[in-house]
Amino acid sequence: MVNGEVKGFVEEIRDLRHIIFLTVYSDGRRVQVTIKKDGSPKAVVDAVEKLTRQSTIWARGDLSANPAVKRGMELIPTEMKVTSIAAEPLPLDPSGKTEANFDTRFKWRVLDLREPRKRLIFKIMTDFEVFAREYFTEDGFIELHTPKLIGAPSESGAEVFALPYFGKEAFLAQSPQFYKQMAICAGFDKVFEVGPVFRANPSHTYRHDTEFTSLDVEIGHVSSIEELMAFEEKWLVHILGRLKERWGTVLKEQFGTELIVPETPFPRITMKEAQDIVEKAGVAVDRSSDLSSDGEKVLGAYVKEKLGQDFVFLTEFPISVRPFYHMRSSEDHKTTYSYDLLYKGLEITTGAQREHRYDVLVKQAEEKGMQVQNLEFYLNFFKYGAPMHAGYGFGLTRIMMQLLGFKNVREVTFLPRDPDTLFP
Amino acid sequence: MVNGEVKGFVEEIRDLRHIIFLTVYSDGRRVQVTIKKDGSPKAVVDAVEKLTRQSTIWARGDLSANPAVKRGMELIPTEMKVTSIAAEPLPLDPSGKTEANFDTRFKWRVLDLREPRKRLIFKIMTDFEVFAREYFTEDGFIELHTPKLIGAPSESGAEVFALPYFGKEAFLAQSPQFYKQMAICAGFDKVFEVGPVFRANPSHTYRHDTEFTSLDVEIGHVSSIEELMAFEEKWLVHILGRLKERWGTVLKEQFGTELIVPETPFPRITMKEAQDIVEKAGVAVDRSSDLSSDGEKVLGAYVKEKLGQDFVFLTEFPISVRPFYHMRSSEDHKTTYSYDLLYKGLEITTGAQREHRYDVLVKQAEEKGMQVQNLEFYLNFFKYGAPMHAGYGFGLTRIMMQLLGFKNVREVTFLPRDPDTLFP
Repeated sequence: MVNGEVKGFVEEIRDLRHIIFLTVYSDGRRVQVTIKKDGSPKAVVDAVEKLTRQSTIWARGDLSANPAVKRGMELIPTEMKVTSIAAEPLPLDPSGKTEANFDTRFKWRVLDLREPRKRLIFKIMTDFEVFAREYFTEDGFIELHTPKLIGAPSESGAEVFALPYFGKEAFLAQSPQFYKQMAICAGFDKVFEVGPVFRANPSHTYRHDTEFTSLDVEIGHVSSIEELMAFEEKWLVHILGRLKERWGTVLKEQFGTELIVPETPFPRITMKEAQDIVEKAGVAVDRSSDLSSDGEKVLGAYVKEKLGQDFVFLTEFPISVRPFYHMRSSEDHKTTYSYDLLYKGLEITTGAQREHRYDVLVKQAEEKGMQVQNLEFYLNFFKYGAPMHAGYGFGLTRIMMQLLGFKNVREVTFLPRDPDTLFP
Repeated sequence: MVNGEVKGFVEEIRDLRHIIFLTVYSDGRRVQVTIKKDGSPKAVVDAVEKLTRQSTIWARGDLSANPAVKRGMELIPTEMKVTSIAAEPLPLDPSGKTEANFDTRFKWRVLDLREPRKRLIFKIMTDFEVFAREYFTEDGFIELHTPKLIGAPSESGAEVFALPYFGKEAFLAQSPQFYKQMAICAGFDKVFEVGPVFRANPSHTYRHDTEFTSLDVEIGHVSSIEELMAFEEKWLVHILGRLKERWGTVLKEQFGTELIVPETPFPRITMKEAQDIVEKAGVAVDRSSDLSSDGEKVLGAYVKEKLGQDFVFLTEFPISVRPFYHMRSSEDHKTTYSYDLLYKGLEITTGAQREHRYDVLVKQAEEKGMQVQNLEFYLNFFKYGAPMHAGYGFGLTRIMMQLLGFKNVREVTFLPRDPDTLFP
């Protein structure tokens, strides 16, 4: 009777006098393979003799539920092939029972991820994107793939990677900012992009990489930043609601975190109010600058305690801390129509109404000390008609880190990149 | 009576003695805005005086169906604002009635894409991805975001971009090949990635860019290349079937192409047979090399004529034209378990069973003259157990070009990159 097949990694080998038990796993499935030394074909017994932990096998035979075995399913093989032999000793224990140090784990990420809980992270992240895209598709968004090789730095020119390009110099896009704006000026109503962005940031922190996945949104014919915030919060409520349905229990059991689908509207707090709150809590505030990461944490805790919310929109950022393309307030002339969205005390989004008027944009670029001749290609997008528009950038790994309760963005990154790390 | 709002670009301005007609469009919508010079508020008439073609406006007023106007919908504004004024003259005619030359079009891509038919391309491409992902999600695939900044060239080292990276040298990934294989070795069963790949290819052809969007698939526990071909054809039938439902009529009317959902199995032709066919048709064949682009066209025409098929799998590629990581035939020891998929005479996919056995992989890399010490990080993926696996890379813009009947891949690329082009 042959009715089953098992392909996978050998997790455990228990070699008793007359019988060998193998625990074999593939993604999301575990089977006990039981080999009776006497009763089994010689080829099978020979194959098993060579086995080491984490080797891979293929086996065919009688597959059935057996309440006596831990995994529930048992296969008695009539045929078996060892498809690869794992070298010994393993550089780390892939069961996760004894956790290796950080460097060893990421050097041997291929073994580190064999722990099922770690692979779960990427299943949940995959679904985050599925649900995000569900909302975009329903709402008529176009998906963009904008170039990462660009002729001039896309932001301030600081922290940009440069490379030789057929006798010229190219740069790696720090964000799809300029090109998603071009899409709006080209007549697309709503666009998004999911792709890598590159930051030549020399620092090592728990929340920065030199390359990460950015999710970018730009919406045309939007005439107030409030409209954009209302869009983003509805979008997030959809994603988190769907994630809770599918993964709520797993999050609780495997990661010890409660997924709370937030109420809308999220609280809005101006930068000035936020600075007052942070200062009152005894954390130093530089009024001419952005909140520090400690400041963000204090504000996150405050919002949770006072308002019972994980999310908060930080609004009315001063002109000095925002890029030239953010639209400036026509009321106070000091702040921008922009926001950061914080989740559990960490910035996950920057959003803004964009300056779409050619003359104003040129003036603002000059005021910020930008090299306007380098920006000509970008400014040209606004020369022949430009709708009002607004958009945001969203850090996929940052929200995953907060959602799953990790302390380092690398835990939710397949292969992190920082100044010291280009391998594997 | 105010019941409507219009936001968009001004396509046409017809200024008659007593009345001004504007045609205003946003993505997928066209409305006639009618301003009676006598009956309208002065602010509205003043706003219109300044207008140029392709400027953007916002207007509110009485919106109703009017069978007398070409666009069906008419707005009589009580309020109107000009949100941006387009400079004059326009560098190209965005209606598409008089087509500018290629360089002008792509220099002013922001205006070029205002032609609705050109934006349609990206709507159809967005749906291509939606339907591709639909299939992946249903089938339990994980979406990867692998690093594009890597420590060693991912393929042969030819045509790779290099850049300084914090005192070291980094390279831009030519494909996610190595990392999707790592995912399989890390225990994921099925993975895909959609993202940019980079090729420092100095040539200018209708089918190459230096950066393009690759869709990559890798499947674990696959033990024959036939299994992979069967997967890819089912996946494509799903996508094309869904595309036909939604876009079949538009493709016919706007692009003059008939979308044919193919029958499975697609024909399989060995490389040797293909070379015979091409040679017989009078096109020169280099037996030690891949088919030329002319050869591909001949084969595409042959398959269409003889078998009524647009797709054909080209199989049994000789070892000499395939990379070291393709598994070699254990039968003839001369060919690889790999294929190309051609669509209407153009290669859109390369797929292969991968060599998963560490020792064999090292030997094959050495034979191909690879610098094995540079590949250590990759070879390490296979040291501690590696399931059999197979996968393919798929060119999104190449299939779109064939599907829509374009002669140049740039037509279906938002902003193409080639050796001379880094702007816009």
